Amino acid sequence: MPKPFEGIKILDLTRALAGPFCTLILSDLGAEVVKLEIPGFGDDARQYGPFVNKQGLYFLSLNRAKKSITLNLKSEEGKTIMKDLLKDFDVLIENYRPGTMEKLGLGYDVLKKIKPQLIYAAASGFGHTGPDSKKPAYDLLAQARGGIMSITGWPDTPPTRVGMSTGDITAGMFTAIGISAALYHLKNTGEGQKIDVAMLDSQVAILENALTRYQVEGKSPEPLGNRHPTVSPFQAFMAKDDYFVLPIGNDSLWQKFCKAVGKDDWINDTKFATNAERNENLEILIPLLEELFITKNAAEWIKQIENYGVPCGPINDIEKVMNDKQIHARNMIVEVNDDKAGKIKIAGNPIKMSSIPDETTRGAVPKLSEHTSEVLSKYLGFDEKKIKQLKKEGVI
Amino acid sequence: MPKPFEGIKILDLTRALAGPFCTLILSDLGAEVVKLEIPGFGDDARQYGPFVNKQGLYFLSLNRAKKSITLNLKSEEGKTIMKDLLKDFDVLIENYRPGTMEKLGLGYDVLKKIKPQLIYAAASGFGHTGPDSKKPAYDLLAQARGGIMSITGWPDTPPTRVGMSTGDITAGMFTAIGISAALYHLKNTGEGQKIDVAMLDSQVAILENALTRYQVEGKSPEPLGNRHPTVSPFQAFMAKDDYFVLPIGNDSLWQKFCKAVGKDDWINDTKFATNAERNENLEILIPLLEELFITKNAAEWIKQIENYGVPCGPINDIEKVMNDKQIHARNMIVEVNDDKAGKIKIAGNPIKMSSIPDETTRGAVPKLSEHTSEVLSKYLGFDEKKIKQLKKEGVI
Repeated sequence: MPKPFEGIKILDLTRALAGPFCTLILSDLGAEVVKLEIPGFGDDARQYGPFVNKQGLYFLSLNRAKKSITLNLKSEEGKTIMKDLLKDFDVLIENYRPGTMEKLGLGYDVLKKIKPQLIYAAASGFGHTGPDSKKPAYDLLAQARGGIMSITGWPDTPPTRVGMSTGDITAGMFTAIGISAALYHLKNTGEGQKIDVAMLDSQVAILENALTRYQVEGKSPEPLGNRHPTVSPFQAFMAKDDYFVLPIGNDSLWQKFCKAVGKDDWINDTKFATNAERNENLEILIPLLEELFITKNAAEWIKQIENYGVPCGPINDIEKVMNDKQIHARNMIVEVNDDKAGKIKIAGNPIKMSSIPDETTRGAVPKLSEHTSEVLSKYLGFDEKKIKQLKKEGVI
Repeated sequence: MPKPFEGIKILDLTRALAGPFCTLILSDLGAEVVKLEIPGFGDDARQYGPFVNKQGLYFLSLNRAKKSITLNLKSEEGKTIMKDLLKDFDVLIENYRPGTMEKLGLGYDVLKKIKPQLIYAAASGFGHTGPDSKKPAYDLLAQARGGIMSITGWPDTPPTRVGMSTGDITAGMFTAIGISAALYHLKNTGEGQKIDVAMLDSQVAILENALTRYQVEGKSPEPLGNRHPTVSPFQAFMAKDDYFVLPIGNDSLWQKFCKAVGKDDWINDTKFATNAERNENLEILIPLLEELFITKNAAEWIKQIENYGVPCGPINDIEKVMNDKQIHARNMIVEVNDDKAGKIKIAGNPIKMSSIPDETTRGAVPKLSEHTSEVLSKYLGFDEKKIKQLKKEGVI
């Protein structure tokens, strides 16, 4: 069975994170991704650490199994080559600041005249419309303006950033959904279209119930550390040696939990009988639990509580994530064998599908311009002489 | 132009968050989503607050514009009706604990024999394979075990939960990508397949550079509050009245920033000239910036710094998110007009596509079983008498 997007060709003008994360997903789904990079420099992320033997691992994790060509889009010949290439590609994706492609004379309005079936996807900070469309953006701005920082962290800490670039990552994922839907639409109707995904919009879309909580309570929700706003106990606790999490989602789990930890008397305690009561009496309940849990190690509590069918688990640091048996059984830690950096472990594909073999290794990361000759000769019939000439002129 | 998934029918057995978030996205892309709920009770999330006039807004935000039918899958007649219905549906999605559908006699192996072209999507806590596959899971367990809690928060706080259910939300998004790709595959080859997405896998997939940082540094990355690990200054600062964020992504922005705040002498200060130097001298740099920023209000700083083309922005609480002009210009705050709750504002669709009209209102949320008669008569030809009989028997 071929992978779902086998045969689909993506011309990828993106740099850094949101765009490359999107095309990483589509590449795992079978698409051929050709990165179009700036001659001599390339994707900014090639310069981001950490490094092993001068190979940037940030770039490696995001760009494995893609191809790299260089093309100077500021030169007339570069523009022409890009337009010619597009005839053979199904999707163009870019994450420039809105207006940049238009300035280059390569905006969607121009390109769709050359190729009406083109799927043109743009991932940007604030989107291609609206008063702040053209402002510069970084993930931190989207996390801050989109509200997530105001509800992450602790009541007494400053606003807290989510520990990864959720602005970029979710925008990349929504763009991947848009492109997948547009490919279906293309197959169905023969029509191309433009997709416009913003980091800021994406942050608003994932706020879950925070918008409605504000409307009911009349004030903005606040950060709550690691506990759930309305379900209790549903948070992290300190054991003798380490923290662990205990999400008691309903009253029946509460009763099982009481038995599991030998506190049968709590079952009939009217202060704790229902979730509403436990939530109201948090100030009594949490100290009791803290006092109990400090007496044994986290692993002991987890085993003892899980035995009663109550959800309970460890808080993994990254080292433990990389050694977790379930994560390995799911092939979520895969390997790239790199010329410079050697064998590097990175995250696998989380979308397990019958039509995708679940590989434990991934294709190599491309050197800058590694596939320029191959791609230009395959799609445009350029010979060695022509390619040498273009290189000399700084076009590729 | 029709929406991309117009005509696609999804039988949605999911409850709570991951699954309903997935089908919400697909519904915005044009699919018809029919929720199959437990008679008399329905999706657990119908019981989740906040409430307005007994309408749960958590449920409302996730299930607008879907249809609801009830069917008892533990009864033989219920199973038969579901199997018959499937003939008219393209996708079945469920987020039960792995093994539950098999116990009901409705696992993928059974269903694909009835309908080989079926796309069967499962979103679960730990996935349908591996030693911990069948353990109960909540978002908090996935956040904890997947590593994100260990790198969110502050050096001196306990492990911190991301302020929304990122375990559920990202699993829902990866499932939506999988279904979209499988629909393309179906159109292309006529073949159905199974999609298996786990919350835990999804958390590993979004760890960004944390896995490679661990391999280079030999120890697990730690939480850093709101600052970037290797770029400086790139964090939140306290102004006279409020926090704001300042992501200085490169040396040229640093120079512009120094001019913007009237500190031209910092430009030539060798302690701060390059990002590497600023990062090394954080203990000198940050107090200087803190001392400066405390003298004016956040809005003044943002205006002054933005004027020099340097990215800088507010940290919105949820109230400010709901009034942000860019967010409104992008139609990211839309309205549902509900019989019980009245007009409620919820998040819009972040995937802007030419083939999707960008609406500012969304369809109503279904009452439990609202569309049972409509769906059973449309697809199975059941008449009023038959439907009454099924209701009496507790099948619907």
